[in-house]
This record gives sequence, structure tokens and C-alpha cells, in this order.
Amino acid sequence: MKKLLDNMRIVLVGTLAPGNIGSTARAMKNMGISKLILVNPYGEVNEEAFRMATNAGNILQAAQKAGSLREAIAGAGYVFGTTARARRWRPFIFPPEMGEKAAGLIQNNQVALVFGPEDRGLSNEQLELCNEIVSIPAARGGKSLNLSHAVIIMCYEIYRAVQGRVAYDAPRLAPAGEVENMYDHMRSTLLEIGFINRQNPEHTLGSFRRILTRAGLAKEEVKLIRGVFRQLLWYIKKQKR
Amino acid sequence: MKKLLDNMRIVLVGTLAPGNIGSTARAMKNMGISKLILVNPYGEVNEEAFRMATNAGNILQAAQKAGSLREAIAGAGYVFGTTARARRWRPFIFPPEMGEKAAGLIQNNQVALVFGPEDRGLSNEQLELCNEIVSIPAARGGKSLNLSHAVIIMCYEIYRAVQGRVAYDAPRLAPAGEVENMYDHMRSTLLEIGFINRQNPEHTLGSFRRILTRAGLAKEEVKLIRGVFRQLLWYIKKQKR
Repeated sequence: MKKLLDNMRIVLVGTLAPGNIGSTARAMKNMGISKLILVNPYGEVNEEAFRMATNAGNILQAAQKAGSLREAIAGAGYVFGTTARARRWRPFIFPPEMGEKAAGLIQNNQVALVFGPEDRGLSNEQLELCNEIVSIPAARGGKSLNLSHAVIIMCYEIYRAVQGRVAYDAPRLAPAGEVENMYDHMRSTLLEIGFINRQNPEHTLGSFRRILTRAGLAKEEVKLIRGVFRQLLWYIKKQKR
Repeated sequence: MKKLLDNMRIVLVGTLAPGNIGSTARAMKNMGISKLILVNPYGEVNEEAFRMATNAGNILQAAQKAGSLREAIAGAGYVFGTTARARRWRPFIFPPEMGEKAAGLIQNNQVALVFGPEDRGLSNEQLELCNEIVSIPAARGGKSLNLSHAVIIMCYEIYRAVQGRVAYDAPRLAPAGEVENMYDHMRSTLLEIGFINRQNPEHTLGSFRRILTRAGLAKEEVKLIRGVFRQLLWYIKKQKR
């Protein structure tokens, strides 16, 4: 089980308070998760962070830094993004469902769970990079949850699901980097045939992205889709001759 | 629902850190619970407590003090006690079961959920006063959970159980007929560019079908995908001229 949970990584994006980074490490340790990646934290991992981490200092010490969310999730086959504003957004799931799903996926994949800055959360662009959106149900009128409170609830659901789970063969999903290359390929083809607008190619591409991230793509499926675009460009070239 | 949750009270016994009292208030507010009772807190409800409570200052302000656990639970029909050492103790339940049970009981009863001091937890004598013991599953070797982390997990389970699943706007999916027309369109295009085999077109098409049915397509998404194929056939025709 420990080994399975090693396939899980927590990604904190633009965290403002060092104390929250520490509390997150403690919450992770309680739930058996140890890989922490910090994307452009605003505060340093300072004494306050270590104080809040209590005996999870080793997780803080080993925390990796990344310059962008894209970099932090590059090796992950599946990415859960968290938001407090789920209703304004596309379909989302609740933490128990996320836990079940993560527990299955980590059998064969690296899986990331991403949290935004305390004040704003993840941006829409950042959520676009996630396969699935998770939101914690909460009372109206309350401010959003403390960051480490959100982390402990999510990690608790993962731990619970892993613990209670019968192993099954999850599909081996394509790493995010390969999927991004596929989108690059898609973008250039759709530009070539004039289906998308040179001014704002991401708008339409975003719709495709939503469909495909919802599906979750296996390595061979990414290959298949790229194959179509390759063939297409070849065919078009041949016609032009 | 708000009224139901008013029958729920959180009791903190002998809390050491004022900041944890504040974080507890915040966690409660997030989950729609507002009645807080402090039994012999070691620290005062000070500035630090209010800082950690963020916008749940009203809960702190209204917190009652009690001289003993017995006094704090006097009006409650049912009492859940929490512990990190459940295995050494009598039969216990996990948080989801507690949430379900509490959600039922608060229809007709005052219900208390009791947390001990950060360092020692509730004593055996205090646990004896509780109708039921709840314990959060956690990884071995980790220190026990931060007090407010334990509170938010428990309150989250209660809130979730009371709320049932929040209704959200599920996307309106495309009827199967439209989806089939889309596949027809796809088939003819892929045949045209020679990506699929005229002998057995369904083999490759089946892979796309699996990806897209997994995603589940909304009406507009089917339109979007057909748009690509329409544009593509138009573009190819233009090149041929």
C-alpha cells in the first residue's frame, strides 16, 4: 500500500503561506502520501513551515520545485484539479469518487492532485490541464476551506479507498507530456485546414481537450490519434502536388 | 439543512493551542455547523484564534465554556467521541458511518462530537461518556492528525451525509442517433484519406468509439467534431481542384 501511494503526488501551485505548506506535509504523512511538488510558492519553505509539518519534515525536505504546473504534472498519467468554484465550471466529481478513481489509477500510473493558491485557487487555464475537477461540498456563505483542510480531506479519501480496495487492472494512461505533444499536432493540423482561428486557436482546441481529458487516454490511443493527423497531413500534401 | 445542523455541537476538551480553536471554528463554518463548546481550554480564545478562524469569528464569539465534558454533553441525546487509538479500545466506527448516523440522529436529537487535547486525546474515562467511538484511518508511523484536520474530516462527513449529493447541472448528452451520424461522417473521412482499411473499417473506428463513449459527448461536442470532418472534406476537395 505504501508503494502504491508513492505513485501519488500532491502539487501546490502558488501557495502564499509557508505554514500551509507545512500543514499540507503533515496531512500527507498522516495519509501515507509523501511526494510533494511546489510550483512557484510565494513564501519560502521556512521555519514556520517546518514547525507546522511536525514530524513530516522529511516530506518538506524532499519537496521538489517546479517552474510551472505543466512541468509538475509532466510525468503524471492522470491529473485531478481542485476547485471551490465547481458549479461555474464543467462537470466535476466529489472527493469520495476521486479517492476511488485515484486508488485504481495508481496501480499503474503516476497520479497528481493539484491545489491552487489560498486566495484564488487554480485558474481556468490551469484547470484545463487537469483530467478531472474535484470539489469539496461546503456550506454557502462560508469562506473557502483552509488549504491544508482541503488537502487532508482529499488525502483521507484516497487513503481510505486504497485501503479498502481490491486490486484491479487500471489502464496505463499516457503521461501528460505525450498528450500535450498530441495537442500540438492537433493544433497545427486544424490550423492548416483552417478549422481553427489563428488569432485564438486555444478556444476550439479547449473543447477537444475537455472531451479527451474526460475520457483519459491510454498510450496507444494517443498514438492512434496522432496517427490520424500524420496521415491527414500526408494526404493533404499529396493532393497539393 | 442549516436548521438540522444546528442540532450538532462540536466539543473541544482541554485544547492547548488557541490557533487550533480558531481553525476548528473555520472548519465548522465551512461545513455548516456553528455550535462550539470549549471544555477547560488550556489557551485563551485570543487574537491568534480569531486570525485562524478567518470569517468564522462569530462562531468563536458565541462559543460556550463548560467546566467538564459531562456538562458540555448534558443536553445531547447522542455523543460521538474521537480517538486516534481506536484499536486499543472497544469497537469503533469510521467517519463515513459516523456521518450517516449523525445525519439521522440530528433529525430529532441534539448530537455532540467530542475531540480531546492535541497531545493525549480523550481519556478512557471521557470516552466512557460517549455512545460511540469514531476513528480516522491513518498511515502508521505518522503522528496523529492536527486537531482541526480531524475536525474538518468529521464535519465534512456529517455535512456530506446531511446534504446527500449536491445536484449539479449534468451536461445534456447527445442522443445516440446523432452520435452514430457522427461516426458515419468520421468513417467516410478516414476512408477518404486512407487512414482506415476499406476491408475492415470498424476495427480502427472502434478505438475512437471507445475513447468517445468513455468521454460521453454533449450535443455541441458532436457538432464540433462533425465540423472538423466537414471542414476537412471541403479542404481536401479544394486542394484537388
